[in-house]
Amino acid sequence: MKTIELAALAKTASRSVRLLDNEVRSSILNEFADNLLNGQESILTANDQDIAAARAEGRTDAFLDRLRLTPERIAAMAQGVREIAAMADPLGRVLEKKTIRSGVRLVKKTVPMGVIGIIFESRPNVTADCAALCLKAGNACILKGGKESLHSCLAITEEMHKAMGKYHLDENALVLLENPDREETNALMECREYVDLLIPRGSSRLINAVVRQAKVPVIETGAGICHTFVDESADLQMADRIVFNAKCSRPSVCNAMETLLVHEKISEQFLPICASSLKEKNVIIHGDEQSRTILKDILPADDTNYATEYNDFEMNIKIVKDVSEAIAHIETFGTHHSDCIVTENAENVLAFFNGVDSACVYHNASTRFTDGGEFGMGAEIGISTQKLHARGPMGLNELTTYAYYLEGNGEIR
Amino acid sequence: MKTIELAALAKTASRSVRLLDNEVRSSILNEFADNLLNGQESILTANDQDIAAARAEGRTDAFLDRLRLTPERIAAMAQGVREIAAMADPLGRVLEKKTIRSGVRLVKKTVPMGVIGIIFESRPNVTADCAALCLKAGNACILKGGKESLHSCLAITEEMHKAMGKYHLDENALVLLENPDREETNALMECREYVDLLIPRGSSRLINAVVRQAKVPVIETGAGICHTFVDESADLQMADRIVFNAKCSRPSVCNAMETLLVHEKISEQFLPICASSLKEKNVIIHGDEQSRTILKDILPADDTNYATEYNDFEMNIKIVKDVSEAIAHIETFGTHHSDCIVTENAENVLAFFNGVDSACVYHNASTRFTDGGEFGMGAEIGISTQKLHARGPMGLNELTTYAYYLEGNGEIR
Repeated sequence: MKTIELAALAKTASRSVRLLDNEVRSSILNEFADNLLNGQESILTANDQDIAAARAEGRTDAFLDRLRLTPERIAAMAQGVREIAAMADPLGRVLEKKTIRSGVRLVKKTVPMGVIGIIFESRPNVTADCAALCLKAGNACILKGGKESLHSCLAITEEMHKAMGKYHLDENALVLLENPDREETNALMECREYVDLLIPRGSSRLINAVVRQAKVPVIETGAGICHTFVDESADLQMADRIVFNAKCSRPSVCNAMETLLVHEKISEQFLPICASSLKEKNVIIHGDEQSRTILKDILPADDTNYATEYNDFEMNIKIVKDVSEAIAHIETFGTHHSDCIVTENAENVLAFFNGVDSACVYHNASTRFTDGGEFGMGAEIGISTQKLHARGPMGLNELTTYAYYLEGNGEIR
Repeated sequence: MKTIELAALAKTASRSVRLLDNEVRSSILNEFADNLLNGQESILTANDQDIAAARAEGRTDAFLDRLRLTPERIAAMAQGVREIAAMADPLGRVLEKKTIRSGVRLVKKTVPMGVIGIIFESRPNVTADCAALCLKAGNACILKGGKESLHSCLAITEEMHKAMGKYHLDENALVLLENPDREETNALMECREYVDLLIPRGSSRLINAVVRQAKVPVIETGAGICHTFVDESADLQMADRIVFNAKCSRPSVCNAMETLLVHEKISEQFLPICASSLKEKNVIIHGDEQSRTILKDILPADDTNYATEYNDFEMNIKIVKDVSEAIAHIETFGTHHSDCIVTENAENVLAFFNGVDSACVYHNASTRFTDGGEFGMGAEIGISTQKLHARGPMGLNELTTYAYYLEGNGEIR
């Protein structure tokens, strides 16, 4: 079937989803979690097929690792689905309630978005996460995964369809696009008639392509060029700990630090301390001229480096003369994701908080905390780096919208 | 100067705007209001120039009326600006405050969007409204008006620039694009680097063109195919009053009714009452076959009619067998703006509220209440008919976004 036809079916199904009580939505998800465990064999068999094909195509070990499912990973997936099922209902939350001047009573309440399209790469577990988050928030969803993971995603989708069937929900509330044809993916991005929101998840290359192509509203997620600025008055031990954690605790994720900015007055003292910690992980460092007079064995950095998200044990250093120069650098090269100032100077905290236009702005803490789980939001569908609708970690609430309900008694204007 | 260069200047200026206190933002706006009155002569002279050119081009009287400024209209514009100045600060509102599990303190607060682009048609007063709303919400703005209103818009912009200058604010916080070249307008729509949000205001033709062309995030406003469904149990006098008001009180606006849906069981009784009221305004009625057996002198209606926003004393009628058919019609032909059920049956209210996926859903009140002023939000920049970020009337709050501010004491993950 063509994407547009499938999208129309998803739209119709979304009208059934929005009528489901929270209890039913949660029951379907718990059933889905059970099915993932019970259907483990068939999921693993499908995954073996994907892995074999990807290996034959000469994919890297890192790629195969992201693609691979194991009993442990399936159990984690099921556990994640159960946690989403147990979360508070994001629908029907009253945001505002008043009588407007005409006497009409107004209630502003959260409601489902409708149909959410998600385009992602070859990580089959995304199928379960997205299907669960979308359903819990009362939405239908259309998933388009990397073609290398198709068999795995189909097997997972089948378990969700069984759960939906048990509760008499239209199975088109979860559509997995199977056609690898580029035209069909484009159709999803342009399907304003049936798709209310599109979320690309994955590399910045994927995200940029979607943003430029899409005609349906998109939320950009994921690109993270995060900075830590160590100010003149910083507690240098604390700064060292934060910098090491921000870079090294999990460099592959978007909230990891890519560039360290250091106040010139403490650079000679701080950089050697910091470099010695980073050496533990053999971090490759690119620095500006001034920092290279202090750290002799690092590589040179240019604007291309400052604009790079390494996602690896690699980073940049730049020495700045004050908090204003730090802010200017972040505003020029950052992606408005997460940025931190380490300082004991309250005035500079204020300047940094006012001047850095990012989703998450930190003082004396690692940027690694930018995460739905850490923020107490539960599972996240991504981290938004744009300003419309949602910023930072996007959880269940961010998959809803609102509507006004007005009750009158014959009022006219 | 090219649009992209002007947009870069607006982005730089937006960093100054976000640092202004509410008091300063309000003072600039009050100064602007004063300047509009003091500069009335030059604004009227500029407007005469626009009017003369438009008349020479053979524009309609309705067009000339929208374009024309008078001392009264300028006074109303100044009054509108003063009202925006007096509104509560939309920035710095604390949306959430908590200590996350790591011990880091989190505050989620409203912050400016950044740079807002607005594309509108030849109504010069929009310049003042938009400039005032954007500044009050801490944003820079880039305006692109219909070319016929250019001199008027320039004169109004000059008064705002004077007010900004008096408070030492970078005048690029308000950029009016003067170049009528289509390429330059396209550049605004594609300028993801500097523009955070684009709002098209005007005809559905303009809005559709922007939505399809834009690469920056867009909020769709304005298209309103609104419905009133008169249910079997409706108080028919009330229904007559609501239908007449929804259609006739101001047919040119987006919250006016375009289609009346009537339950078949009361259609023979209700339609003649209703038609006789509508006759007072000589409303042109298109009806389905069934309604044409009751109202003999109306025109036939087809799907094209049901998909038309007349914006005039013209409307459709359709007879439906129950609330489900009414909902299905609205979901097929509506624009998710404002829709109403007139009924005394609570169960049907619930079905309608759950089933109609519109920004504003009414029971026993006219759809004409969908308006920022009526909702107590003050001036509005438009009425959103999409689901991302804002739905329904968009006031000052909808021109802001939020950010997370995190204060730690050396916490790492």
